[in-house]
Amino acid sequence: MGKLYVIGIGPGGQEYFTEKALTAIKESNIIVGYTPYIEYLGDLAKDKEIYSTGMKSEIERCEKAISLAREGNIVSIVSTGDAGLYGMAGPILERSEGVNVEVVPGVSANFAAAAYLGAPIMHDFATISLSDLLTPWEVIVKRVKAARDGDFVICFYNPRSKGRKDHLEKMINLLLEKKAPKTPVGIVKDAGRKGTKVTLTTLDSIDYEEVDMLTTVIVGNSKTFTRGELMITPRGYENK
Amino acid sequence: MGKLYVIGIGPGGQEYFTEKALTAIKESNIIVGYTPYIEYLGDLAKDKEIYSTGMKSEIERCEKAISLAREGNIVSIVSTGDAGLYGMAGPILERSEGVNVEVVPGVSANFAAAAYLGAPIMHDFATISLSDLLTPWEVIVKRVKAARDGDFVICFYNPRSKGRKDHLEKMINLLLEKKAPKTPVGIVKDAGRKGTKVTLTTLDSIDYEEVDMLTTVIVGNSKTFTRGELMITPRGYENK
Repeated sequence: MGKLYVIGIGPGGQEYFTEKALTAIKESNIIVGYTPYIEYLGDLAKDKEIYSTGMKSEIERCEKAISLAREGNIVSIVSTGDAGLYGMAGPILERSEGVNVEVVPGVSANFAAAAYLGAPIMHDFATISLSDLLTPWEVIVKRVKAARDGDFVICFYNPRSKGRKDHLEKMINLLLEKKAPKTPVGIVKDAGRKGTKVTLTTLDSIDYEEVDMLTTVIVGNSKTFTRGELMITPRGYENK
Repeated sequence: MGKLYVIGIGPGGQEYFTEKALTAIKESNIIVGYTPYIEYLGDLAKDKEIYSTGMKSEIERCEKAISLAREGNIVSIVSTGDAGLYGMAGPILERSEGVNVEVVPGVSANFAAAAYLGAPIMHDFATISLSDLLTPWEVIVKRVKAARDGDFVICFYNPRSKGRKDHLEKMINLLLEKKAPKTPVGIVKDAGRKGTKVTLTTLDSIDYEEVDMLTTVIVGNSKTFTRGELMITPRGYENK
């Protein structure tokens, strides 16, 4: 009987792979993934059968991985971050009844990004994707308002693309209706990959041009402060 | 000059360690941590100087790690999950000005737990600790209501302890005021450690006696469904 591993490899760099992910990849005879993710595997992908496709073919990749596992192969489908957050775990499990599937968790982009900034998350937080490809815009707006009113640290995924240049700015303006303009904001592009770029700014001073789809934006809560290049959210209310 | 690594080792099992965490631990001459976390290191802690203390001595451990790094040692302070979520990154960075600190991200408990349930998170989510040791109870209540009204998947940390047996039940009752009683709930005790226990239930049927401090509770959003033993939140609104 075949097996299908759904693997989050972390942000990209091999130093963020878990032992569990490495073992699953080594055990597999076939690797399925978006072409750039396969490249992150480097030598791990050597001697494996590879099935890689471009960005818009996610469901095709899922179906291919499932059918290869049904045929008796040991298959790893890889994605960055954690496979269970905006990743492949859901689409695979929705379609793979009867297949032996194992989800292998990974370091998600928000924590990879946070590590560069110091300790910006630390306490209760909300993660929101600003992509409206699969989610109605009014749902996104509702969630941003709720996260703001709950004083959560907020991590924005997919904050800005060519097709939706103004999504992040619209959401930041919603935050500014109630949050302090000088609330710290950390912007990390390509966290855990080559060429990582880290910017520390405030809610009223974001340079939107530096934000793209591969950027994670972390907005502090009412207690978050900065010290030099660091963004720190206290773990509790004991010090502030 | 010394160095201080603040390391999230993931849920506990060594298969969840990242390469980066392994490298940092190997490079260190001193390891600091809560006694059970040091045990998770197994042979990695062999031949190292160890400074371990009990549960309530977190700030003491931080101060010790910082002073050892100031003396020129290469120190790893380890905690489970990701060090930047209810972990040591904040307390360390608040106290370590001038010390060379590096935060090493890890697999957080919510994603480790989620992998056992299938794909319960997948989309926008909020993480909330129900411990009121460091956070006023009214802030916790405000956040639970906000996460509920924003239809986030909700991950509860520290859901229930001997000293606060009714915290989770009170919060679930708040959720039931607006969410469907049959909303799926996943309960994972000791995720990624020996003796992991997974329960799939619904908002109106939680057995609170099986929940303790080492349990992660994941409550679905309005689209979450179950199939057999799996809890799945669709990644988007395309299928439902």
